[in-house]
Amino acid sequence: MTGLAIDPDFCAGLFAELLSFSQDVPGVTRAAYGAGEERAHALMRSTGLALGLTAETDAAGNLFLTMAGRDPALPHWMVGSHVDTVPHGGNFDGAAGVIGGLAAVEALRRAGIVPARPVTVAVFRAEESVWFPASYVGSRAAFGLLPPEVLDLPRADTGRSLRDHMADLGLRPEAVARGERLLDPARIHGFVEMHIEQGPALEAAGIPVGFVTAISGSFRYRKAACYGRYGHSGAVARGERSDAVFALADLIAGLDALWGTLEAEGSPATITLGEVATDPVQHAFAKIPGEVRFCLDVRSTEPSVLDRVEVALAERVAAVEAARSVRFVLGERTGSTPARMSAALVEALSGHARRLGTPFRTMASGAGHDTATLAGQGVPSTMIFIRNQNGSHNPDEAMRIEDLCAAATLVAHLAAEA
Amino acid sequence: MTGLAIDPDFCAGLFAELLSFSQDVPGVTRAAYGAGEERAHALMRSTGLALGLTAETDAAGNLFLTMAGRDPALPHWMVGSHVDTVPHGGNFDGAAGVIGGLAAVEALRRAGIVPARPVTVAVFRAEESVWFPASYVGSRAAFGLLPPEVLDLPRADTGRSLRDHMADLGLRPEAVARGERLLDPARIHGFVEMHIEQGPALEAAGIPVGFVTAISGSFRYRKAACYGRYGHSGAVARGERSDAVFALADLIAGLDALWGTLEAEGSPATITLGEVATDPVQHAFAKIPGEVRFCLDVRSTEPSVLDRVEVALAERVAAVEAARSVRFVLGERTGSTPARMSAALVEALSGHARRLGTPFRTMASGAGHDTATLAGQGVPSTMIFIRNQNGSHNPDEAMRIEDLCAAATLVAHLAAEA
Repeated sequence: MTGLAIDPDFCAGLFAELLSFSQDVPGVTRAAYGAGEERAHALMRSTGLALGLTAETDAAGNLFLTMAGRDPALPHWMVGSHVDTVPHGGNFDGAAGVIGGLAAVEALRRAGIVPARPVTVAVFRAEESVWFPASYVGSRAAFGLLPPEVLDLPRADTGRSLRDHMADLGLRPEAVARGERLLDPARIHGFVEMHIEQGPALEAAGIPVGFVTAISGSFRYRKAACYGRYGHSGAVARGERSDAVFALADLIAGLDALWGTLEAEGSPATITLGEVATDPVQHAFAKIPGEVRFCLDVRSTEPSVLDRVEVALAERVAAVEAARSVRFVLGERTGSTPARMSAALVEALSGHARRLGTPFRTMASGAGHDTATLAGQGVPSTMIFIRNQNGSHNPDEAMRIEDLCAAATLVAHLAAEA
Repeated sequence: MTGLAIDPDFCAGLFAELLSFSQDVPGVTRAAYGAGEERAHALMRSTGLALGLTAETDAAGNLFLTMAGRDPALPHWMVGSHVDTVPHGGNFDGAAGVIGGLAAVEALRRAGIVPARPVTVAVFRAEESVWFPASYVGSRAAFGLLPPEVLDLPRADTGRSLRDHMADLGLRPEAVARGERLLDPARIHGFVEMHIEQGPALEAAGIPVGFVTAISGSFRYRKAACYGRYGHSGAVARGERSDAVFALADLIAGLDALWGTLEAEGSPATITLGEVATDPVQHAFAKIPGEVRFCLDVRSTEPSVLDRVEVALAERVAAVEAARSVRFVLGERTGSTPARMSAALVEALSGHARRLGTPFRTMASGAGHDTATLAGQGVPSTMIFIRNQNGSHNPDEAMRIEDLCAAATLVAHLAAEA
């Protein structure tokens, strides 16, 4: 199948078009169920239709573009990802997996290959949980798995509910609420999500692609706070203070020490406080801070590691509260379960990579992805990480088109084979 | 002089009138050179005129209300404070010293006592440096000591310069710039500033007043920041991160450890980061924070302690930068010099307190006050701290009127005596 060549210009053209309507200096913003995501879905739909694919949209607005196979009775291959971004993020996180899937289909079509199985490019909604505080909104809804209460969650920027945002776009939140599903796990032969790595490992190693063996789960406190007591910065002795900022620093020091221990043991974890802020209404240069808000994101591919960090968090919170006369209110806990990838799929992709001379490695995903939803439904699943520069979820996010093409070539061969 | 009784209703009435036009839920706001401070000056002026005092206003808008003495050639007693507040602060920090001074004069007048020396109640401008990032703006200007470049500083809320705010009120910033002064240190016999303690020591000890033996100096970084690198919260390993928030936590831990050492030695210091914030435009729940802004306020009555903390700060900054691949930019440094109070004045006040049966103690002031400016000019100076509840610079600030009356009684006796 030497004719299976991915067209880099096809990919670059789609990225440029996405950028044209979603640039938001610095970076790119496509809010989940917002104007940017909606236009991106429309772009993928029109592109798919132009390639002769059939289009289906489910109650939650997930889009499925299917290339017919020789045997329509066979379960599908599915590839895809999401097209929303974090605020002021980059153009590649998510979109690469959809564009790569379309490019694989385009290459099959151009090569005159009709695969045995149908090949579906999935465009999931609302993967970036910065908008609605829940993981995998779109992919869970596609399987009828979204808890109805998630529809009541407000979007971080608008404060309006997921239900209202869906209704704005003519979608059917009531069908999502009653668990209507378009996808049947039994009808999916395997799922592959191409995605930028988001970390520096592939770039540092000079390897274009990585096959994912596990996806981290997480626990999160998105609206946590530490409360102390405001006071004059010069007039309260050290032992009399209830300084919320010093208390948070203590909490961070404790979590960082635990993380160091885990790292030394080889136990995978990440611990991040992405947002930290004293209260702009009450804080002042000459005041001991009586309040600091923060969010906490803990991830691991090992459920036991998540448990250990959560236990240590509770212990440290209690210790800091006692030592510094403060009170932590962690607020609502959200989370997701770690997911194992399909060893058979990873082996199949590895075989194609070896034959094609594409360097690869296997690795875990510290970030969560829709693939975890499909794996959780028993669909044999994996991800192809694509080497990238400058991380992700930031305006400087970057990726080489030829690396995406290398990944899409593997996907095209997988689909063509069986 | 048993007739020298301070009128609590006189004081309470003035506090109530101040509150009526400066309440800003939660708390009280009277911005330096803003509408609240201006109305407070007008209130003190009209109150002073009604008491038969003469009023003078200098180029910077400081107000001086003088009760004539038997010998106009003698240097004055001066009492006073400021009437601006921090944003959402309390009604007592500053105002108590002015109202207490007027109450002392009112009591002298009501008792038919004409002191030997003139008694001047000073109402200084802009003591709270949260508005303009400079210490003792009003009292320095009163002595012609305000560096002209301070007039270019923007007010934190409006962004407009001190010069423009002065001009708005019909004052004379050009005269302030050339060092025009209304006060001559040689013409001030002694200065006493009544002020709420702002800390919990007097309240905890059950003592109504404290005489101040030294005022802390300080160094401050009001616009400091730590810069790291944004990245996906799940996708970057611990050792590859440049996490600005973890770095700041390290810096705080280092400063807190030093502070603990100083405390154990009995070396006076306070260390406060009153404002801390990641960047709302770029931060996100699922991003490693690439930036955190903060301010730092370090105070001590001992210049050598300030020096030690500043050296340790530089060392810790360098160590954290190296360990965490971040960069600190501390920004402009401001500061003030510690001031020694007059032992003779403290002894005179102590004598009156003993005779009147008023419990007292001596103590240092961790906070800076205009008194430091007068002491720096060689004027024998001290402060009377007044027991207060709930600290200061916060909406819950409180004070018992009878404690202010106890302080004002001492001031009235001091003025009546010589």
